[in-house]
Amino acid sequence: MSLVLDPAAQDLLFREARTANTFTDEPVTDEQVQAIYELVKYGPTAFNQSPLRVVLVRTPEGRERLVKHMTESNRPKTSTAPLVALLFADNEFHEELPALLPHFPQAKDAFFSERPARERSAALNAGLQAGYFIVGVRAAGLAAGPMTGYDAAGVEKEFSDGDHTLLMAINIGRPGADAWRPRLPRLSYDEVVTTA
Amino acid sequence: MSLVLDPAAQDLLFREARTANTFTDEPVTDEQVQAIYELVKYGPTAFNQSPLRVVLVRTPEGRERLVKHMTESNRPKTSTAPLVALLFADNEFHEELPALLPHFPQAKDAFFSERPARERSAALNAGLQAGYFIVGVRAAGLAAGPMTGYDAAGVEKEFSDGDHTLLMAINIGRPGADAWRPRLPRLSYDEVVTTA
Repeated sequence: MSLVLDPAAQDLLFREARTANTFTDEPVTDEQVQAIYELVKYGPTAFNQSPLRVVLVRTPEGRERLVKHMTESNRPKTSTAPLVALLFADNEFHEELPALLPHFPQAKDAFFSERPARERSAALNAGLQAGYFIVGVRAAGLAAGPMTGYDAAGVEKEFSDGDHTLLMAINIGRPGADAWRPRLPRLSYDEVVTTA
Repeated sequence: MSLVLDPAAQDLLFREARTANTFTDEPVTDEQVQAIYELVKYGPTAFNQSPLRVVLVRTPEGRERLVKHMTESNRPKTSTAPLVALLFADNEFHEELPALLPHFPQAKDAFFSERPARERSAALNAGLQAGYFIVGVRAAGLAAGPMTGYDAAGVEKEFSDGDHTLLMAINIGRPGADAWRPRLPRLSYDEVVTTA
C-alpha cells in the first residue's frame, strides 16, 4: 500500500464518510467543534493568512433566520440538523496578517492592499480551509452535509457583521434514517491526473 | 477527547505535518500519487462536480518549463522537489456532470450554462478538493509545499490544454535538511468561530 495513514482512518475520513441528508437529534457540542478547529487550524494557507470564519447556528431563533434564505430543497435538513456551520471567507484577513506572519509583516501591504487580490486570495484559502474543516468534522465521528443552495447575499447580511463572503453552509450531526443515496461515481485517475 | 480519529493520524495529517521548503531526492512514484487520488476523490463537492485537475511535473524538461514562471524565491524548491503537482480548476467541468450526477443530468443546464457561475463554482469546489489533496499527500507520509508565487497566466498557457484556472503548485517529497521554520501562530478558536 502506498499510503501510511491507517486504513481505519482512511475509511473514517474518506472511504466510508458520506454527505448526510438526515440527522439524529443527538446534539453537537461546542467542545466537539472546538476539537475540530484545534485540529484543522494547522492546515496550511498562503502566507498563513487563515481567512476562514465560522458562524454556528444552533438555536431555534438562529435557525429561523437561516432557513428562510435556503432553497426549498435544503430547508428540511437545515431545520433538523443538530448544528449548522456557516463558512465565510474574511476579505479583511490582512488585518491579522502581521500577527500571523511575524517574520514578514510587510506582506500585508506588499500583497494585500488591493481589494480584488485580497478577495481572490481569501476565497481560495478559505476554500482550502473548508476542505480541512470537512475532514475535521469526520475526524470527530460526525457527518457533514455541505450546501450552497441559498440566497448568499441574504445569509451574509443576516449572519456576517463584516466584509465576509459566504462559501457554504454545513449541516453537522450523526446520520439519521436514510441519510444518503448510493455513492455517486468519481472521475478516474487518468481523467484527472496527467503528466507534463 | 472529542475526536474519534486516532491521535497518530491526527499528528500525521495536521499536528506534525508541515509545509516543507526542502526535499530529499527520494522519488515520488506514480503509484503514490494514484493512491492519494484514489483516497481523496471521495471528498464531497457540490453536485459531485469534481472540478480539480492535476498536472504532474517531474522531468527535467517539464521542470524547466515550469520554473521560469515561478517567482524568484520559489525557484530553488520547485527545481529540487521530486515532484511538483499543478492544481487547476476545470471551468468546463459541466461536460462531465451528466456522468457524475446520473440522477439529475439537468443540473448541467439548470445551474452551469453560464460561464461566470461555472467559474465561481469550479474555483470553490476545486479549492475544497485541493484541501483534500494536501491531506492526501500527508496520508502518503509525504510533505506538501503549496505555492501561489508564479505568473499564473504563464503556467496556465504552458501546462493547460483547456479552460483551466491555476489554483496552486505543490512541491511533494520527503522533507530535506532545514525543511521548515518554527510553526507559525494560528488564530484562536474565539477569533474564528462565533455562535449566532
